[in-house]
Amino acid sequence: MSSHHIVRDDQEPALIIANGASCSEELLGQLLEWSPYVIVLDSAIERVFELGIKVDVLLGDFDRAFDAHDYKNKQYPLEIVYAPDQNKTDLEKAFDFLIEKGHKAVNVIWATGKRADHTLVNLTTICNYKEQLKIVLFDDYSKIFLLPNQFKKWYNKNTIISLIPIGKVEGIYSENLFYPLNNHTLELGIRTGSSNHVTKDGLVTITHEKGNLLLIESFE
Amino acid sequence: MSSHHIVRDDQEPALIIANGASCSEELLGQLLEWSPYVIVLDSAIERVFELGIKVDVLLGDFDRAFDAHDYKNKQYPLEIVYAPDQNKTDLEKAFDFLIEKGHKAVNVIWATGKRADHTLVNLTTICNYKEQLKIVLFDDYSKIFLLPNQFKKWYNKNTIISLIPIGKVEGIYSENLFYPLNNHTLELGIRTGSSNHVTKDGLVTITHEKGNLLLIESFE
Repeated sequence: MSSHHIVRDDQEPALIIANGASCSEELLGQLLEWSPYVIVLDSAIERVFELGIKVDVLLGDFDRAFDAHDYKNKQYPLEIVYAPDQNKTDLEKAFDFLIEKGHKAVNVIWATGKRADHTLVNLTTICNYKEQLKIVLFDDYSKIFLLPNQFKKWYNKNTIISLIPIGKVEGIYSENLFYPLNNHTLELGIRTGSSNHVTKDGLVTITHEKGNLLLIESFE
Repeated sequence: MSSHHIVRDDQEPALIIANGASCSEELLGQLLEWSPYVIVLDSAIERVFELGIKVDVLLGDFDRAFDAHDYKNKQYPLEIVYAPDQNKTDLEKAFDFLIEKGHKAVNVIWATGKRADHTLVNLTTICNYKEQLKIVLFDDYSKIFLLPNQFKKWYNKNTIISLIPIGKVEGIYSENLFYPLNNHTLELGIRTGSSNHVTKDGLVTITHEKGNLLLIESFE
């Protein structure tokens, strides 16, 4: 997609390629299918260019021995966004950049699987963007997103679903999950709702009153 | 180590091999060097036996098409612990088992890197064992443990240290970190202290008043 495009309400989610473990080419191919607006974080660009992916934006603090402008010569047009703020991660800066541009939704890959601190922060930082951006993280084993207070989606029987509270989440109810939740409270580090699964083909309903609740669909 | 050993105060930490991504043989070799008491979780035993590692205990709910007792014939003695409780993860059951046996410390590998729900729960569940068991998780990129309220350790300059609150952590102070903490509050999903680093060779001091604070040392 050209970097001059206009953001529409029904637009394909943008794609952020972060700097964790690479995913399968199959997953990458699915997420690139509709030519999303692509932002690559920092030195991940080296691996991305090897894959021959067309990139719109390269964003980072570029604090390694690494010349971002080298890449301008390798692909044109490529927008380079220098984002030095040390109080935010590159992923947060990319979310801010997309919001500023008017985007409403983004998929994120390569955000997990190497440094544990990056994985933990990337998986939980999406809480800060709850009202501004619809964010879905994917890796080869999982699809991760933050639940609205009322959530309803059709799932196949036996789909593995984990409910992970970031902090404390109160007043959780579920329908069509094998281990039902009925006004439960979950709290990270104390009690989570991992490795639940869907009872029968059909709608799963999950509601909660308060707090940030991640839903993780897992494949094995 | 024989399964009939007596647990002493100064004993080598036990080793739990969980069911996430395998680590490098180098890391595995380091952790096996002093012949720890080894517990393997569920179907990870397939990968562990391929590596020729001597195992003391195989623990799990064995809910896949997988016959744990097959492995009794492959290595003797091997203690099989059937742990069906669906309210706990296999890792938590292994911690409980070690506490029951009188162990004071354990290293954990293969606990990260595949399913995001497992990674998140494994990294945070150690909060539940703060008073009972000294737990250190390792993978190829990170060393992870829960901080006591007063923590002091010698580090090399530029060691990457992240402070990740599980929930909310108040009254954090640091000495010899590049981004100093001075009565800071951190909260997962809102504000964390990731990607800090050590200012100069020497002691790093981190204290906190309240809450569960993970320290993650990262290597790249």
